[in-house]
Amino acid sequence: MMEQMRQLAGSLRKKHIDQQVCLKGWVQKRRDLGGLIFIDLRDRTGVVQIVFNPAISEAALAIAEDVRSEYVIEVNGKVIERAPETMNEKMATGEIEVVVEEINVLNKAKTPPFSIVEDKDISEELRLKYRYLDLRRQTMQNMFKLRHQATQVIRQFLNDEEYLEMETPMLTKSTPEGARDYLVPSRVHPGHFYALPQSPQLFKQLIMVAGFERYYQFARCFRDEDLRADRQPEFTQIDIETSFMSSDEIMAMTERMMEKLMKEVKGIDVTLPFPRMRYDEAMARYGSDKPDTRFGMELVDISETVANSGFKVFESTVQSGGKVNAINVKNHAADYSRKDIDKLTDFVKIYGAKGLAWLKVDEEGFKGPIAKFFTEEEQQALVNQLNAEANDLVLFVADKQSIVFDSLGSLRLKLGKDLDLIDEAKFNFLWVTDWPLLEYDEDAGRYFAAHHPFTMPATEDIEKLSTNPEQVKAQAYDLVLNGFELGGGSLRIYKKELQDKMFEVLGFSKEEAEEQFSFLLQALEYGTPPHGGIALGFDRLVMLLAGKSSLRDTILFPKTASAADPLTEAPGSVSRAQLDELSLTIQEKIPKE
Amino acid sequence: MMEQMRQLAGSLRKKHIDQQVCLKGWVQKRRDLGGLIFIDLRDRTGVVQIVFNPAISEAALAIAEDVRSEYVIEVNGKVIERAPETMNEKMATGEIEVVVEEINVLNKAKTPPFSIVEDKDISEELRLKYRYLDLRRQTMQNMFKLRHQATQVIRQFLNDEEYLEMETPMLTKSTPEGARDYLVPSRVHPGHFYALPQSPQLFKQLIMVAGFERYYQFARCFRDEDLRADRQPEFTQIDIETSFMSSDEIMAMTERMMEKLMKEVKGIDVTLPFPRMRYDEAMARYGSDKPDTRFGMELVDISETVANSGFKVFESTVQSGGKVNAINVKNHAADYSRKDIDKLTDFVKIYGAKGLAWLKVDEEGFKGPIAKFFTEEEQQALVNQLNAEANDLVLFVADKQSIVFDSLGSLRLKLGKDLDLIDEAKFNFLWVTDWPLLEYDEDAGRYFAAHHPFTMPATEDIEKLSTNPEQVKAQAYDLVLNGFELGGGSLRIYKKELQDKMFEVLGFSKEEAEEQFSFLLQALEYGTPPHGGIALGFDRLVMLLAGKSSLRDTILFPKTASAADPLTEAPGSVSRAQLDELSLTIQEKIPKE
Repeated sequence: MMEQMRQLAGSLRKKHIDQQVCLKGWVQKRRDLGGLIFIDLRDRTGVVQIVFNPAISEAALAIAEDVRSEYVIEVNGKVIERAPETMNEKMATGEIEVVVEEINVLNKAKTPPFSIVEDKDISEELRLKYRYLDLRRQTMQNMFKLRHQATQVIRQFLNDEEYLEMETPMLTKSTPEGARDYLVPSRVHPGHFYALPQSPQLFKQLIMVAGFERYYQFARCFRDEDLRADRQPEFTQIDIETSFMSSDEIMAMTERMMEKLMKEVKGIDVTLPFPRMRYDEAMARYGSDKPDTRFGMELVDISETVANSGFKVFESTVQSGGKVNAINVKNHAADYSRKDIDKLTDFVKIYGAKGLAWLKVDEEGFKGPIAKFFTEEEQQALVNQLNAEANDLVLFVADKQSIVFDSLGSLRLKLGKDLDLIDEAKFNFLWVTDWPLLEYDEDAGRYFAAHHPFTMPATEDIEKLSTNPEQVKAQAYDLVLNGFELGGGSLRIYKKELQDKMFEVLGFSKEEAEEQFSFLLQALEYGTPPHGGIALGFDRLVMLLAGKSSLRDTILFPKTASAADPLTEAPGSVSRAQLDELSLTIQEKIPKE
Repeated sequence: MMEQMRQLAGSLRKKHIDQQVCLKGWVQKRRDLGGLIFIDLRDRTGVVQIVFNPAISEAALAIAEDVRSEYVIEVNGKVIERAPETMNEKMATGEIEVVVEEINVLNKAKTPPFSIVEDKDISEELRLKYRYLDLRRQTMQNMFKLRHQATQVIRQFLNDEEYLEMETPMLTKSTPEGARDYLVPSRVHPGHFYALPQSPQLFKQLIMVAGFERYYQFARCFRDEDLRADRQPEFTQIDIETSFMSSDEIMAMTERMMEKLMKEVKGIDVTLPFPRMRYDEAMARYGSDKPDTRFGMELVDISETVANSGFKVFESTVQSGGKVNAINVKNHAADYSRKDIDKLTDFVKIYGAKGLAWLKVDEEGFKGPIAKFFTEEEQQALVNQLNAEANDLVLFVADKQSIVFDSLGSLRLKLGKDLDLIDEAKFNFLWVTDWPLLEYDEDAGRYFAAHHPFTMPATEDIEKLSTNPEQVKAQAYDLVLNGFELGGGSLRIYKKELQDKMFEVLGFSKEEAEEQFSFLLQALEYGTPPHGGIALGFDRLVMLLAGKSSLRDTILFPKTASAADPLTEAPGSVSRAQLDELSLTIQEKIPKE
């Protein structure tokens, strides 16, 4: 076959007419028509139509007759203009075609288990097992071009701001106080294990102690947690740490990064600075620490209004320290039957709510089974608080605070989607700030770090660490986009005494803290600068940029919900010899009765 | 303290004179002189001198009196010109200093276990244990700036050539035919294990099957091998794969990448194309598959010349199928006593040689204990072959071919260094091509892939796979720089039948091949394009760019020779509960007798 410089299928245009070209790629579709054969030839840049005509080459036509979908071929031929009636405006290359003079089949293909061309619903299992075919589909090709582009835009931004890209170890030490580690047995040190990093948290702090001041990394992280749709055992985060910067400066830097990303990848101008909301306010208004602010229907606390009402459920809840909150589903009363509301009740029960009370509004006032329990004054107060108007549906949950937030916040999101209240074109960034530093765990009987044990408490709260730990706020900030947590960060503790104090509050003895975090505690004594940073989930960011809802679509070779890979069949069994080298034995399982 | 925009210590110049500045950084050195205190203040950009003068601020001076090396401080002050006699031309900021008006100690520091300023010999163990201090030293700061820069230059090059950066999984499947895997036990699938990737080889091939055509990644790779000075359990490689490109095209692309890197990072123009040498030639001339071509002293095969000489050692070696090679140490006969040569003999014995024969040359001819065994004709032939002249020292090894190459090739390198024959300013790139595809393992009684089992045989050798496997060459190429293997690549097998044949030659039954590589063999049947690629060791590349000799200097947090991290004390012990979750038990060690 004549050797020629390869040209790219998707690049051919009218200006190439009369040129000889060599193309290499995949057969996307073949059509036989009037003694001719037409093939849509696909490569990484797109698709072009090639034609086999017996008047040009009988030999080529004969070969083309045996060619099937997904065969890999190379052809030489000439670019010609299509007849006006056969031009295809939907194709970038639709004004031309290539008349083939020579064809060479580089590789054959069996019939794929699903179509590469049509975007049908394919089972997740099949897509992952044949991931190399799934990835040939246009949506997936676009996804990983987008991911590449987003990676480069962010890198360029950070390089321009003088951050150094640095690589931290994957074989690290298992530390408590986080999610479950993936462990890696050591052969050289029998009975000892490395852990894969849940994040490079301690290493990036050490990089600050080392004086680099500005670090970033697209860091692979690992968590051996039970998986949900939006979790993967390994994931990538944009990991950033800085010295001598305030939290305002870190947030402003992050905003500039997102601004550039949105502009270059989506062509969207975002407004800076991003709005900020204190954690307490986010919970009160949206029942969520990552509110989707693209629509309203905010929670309203009506506890005081109904504290002495005749409706015993509300009254007793408030009397016993609980809360009653409501959301107003504006102008949809007529759309919800009792049966519909029963379904909403089932929904809030998932989140622990015992029930869902409701009222409808008409010209005359509240209607519904519980309307009668409220006095005229109470009803007027509710109208004012809820801005209740005719045809509104008001939904109530009465329970302890956390259940009210969780159930009503989730119901709000569900209704926002069901009623199509969300403008999908919007990208609503939001900072959530002033997080609690600690969470009390009833089972363990002690405080845990809400974020991690290296987070700096609010300066004005430091004294409360001993007296009222639950009231201490953290110098932490989460970045939320359209109801998803993109990631978060904080200033870190950089004084030894404060870090010691923090471990004490977390219930560590001096010896335990020393044993598990000796290198950090030691580093704090050798001139550690004030520092802080942020980490953003890159897979999720790409998912939101692409307008998708599954993290798996953004990861090249993802795992299933049981952390397996149907393609390579990982995890797999290993040989006895491999285990012996690692001094390990697999426990015999005693069957459960 | 007055809030001001921070300025960077290393950036201050004469043009800043009279400006008010705020500086933050580390105390590098303090000197008390005539009632004043001088401090060298260091941040990531460099060092500037700051002065405490009681006439300006007694308060600041009082605080400065307590400040020690490596304290973290912030200061406000005014830039002034230094008196002419105190200017320091060696410092970029040496024409000015900052008179401090306010100082704030941000953090204290204990006396570091070694000096941050002076580049003394510090024990490796101490450096790694206090890595965060070791990294503060100027050479290490420069190293990681260089590494960052090299990363970005290479990325920019590959982005410009339309390669997509893509991330492959870290939790993969253990496969045979490579080095030892690091294993990761699965909690969800008891008794099953992931393996950390030795390289993304199969994934990058699947990316080609998926039609992306051009892929790259700075890929973290893992090998659980016994470590040497130039090996680490985890390392980074520049991983590249392409479709539809010939090996010449892949090599040319790699050369352009190296050209850009050398230009932008070192300011050096390299000449393209790089020289190429067949594997056989490299072994014959240098006794090495990664020859250092910065100096001569090549091996000369004198087997035929001495095959019938009176020197029995040479004669019997050649008669029994072995080889006699020599190197000529030009003009150094006078510098080597018998004792010196005895030391060289000890050196070649490390590589399995039984001895080292030698001759010195003077005006009259060869001198030395074995000179008498050679006839006049033989001596003249040796003079011609070895270009022997007065004051040359000729060294001989007679043994089987592999030992001759190994010992004499190593001796050549040692002498090159000892005699200072190597121009350290040179960057000699070299392609080594036409590698053997297979290596026969006597112990296992079968062939192994010299590179990996997916390497494409030379087209003209494919028929020999059945008849003379040891003669089959691979379409593989290694890139060598100054005697170090930077990395290598190959075209890959893309036809199912040839891959089947390859596994057969490697002694796999159809079932074994199917079981271990089912996904690859399957993928080959669905339209796999011709493809190939290359992988370059990035840590080593940075090491050579920096002119260093230890890989550990190029890795931020490296491991010791026993794969441990003295800083975090990884690997560590884990709890019984963690092991139970993984269904693992640690084997009791039976003490060896």
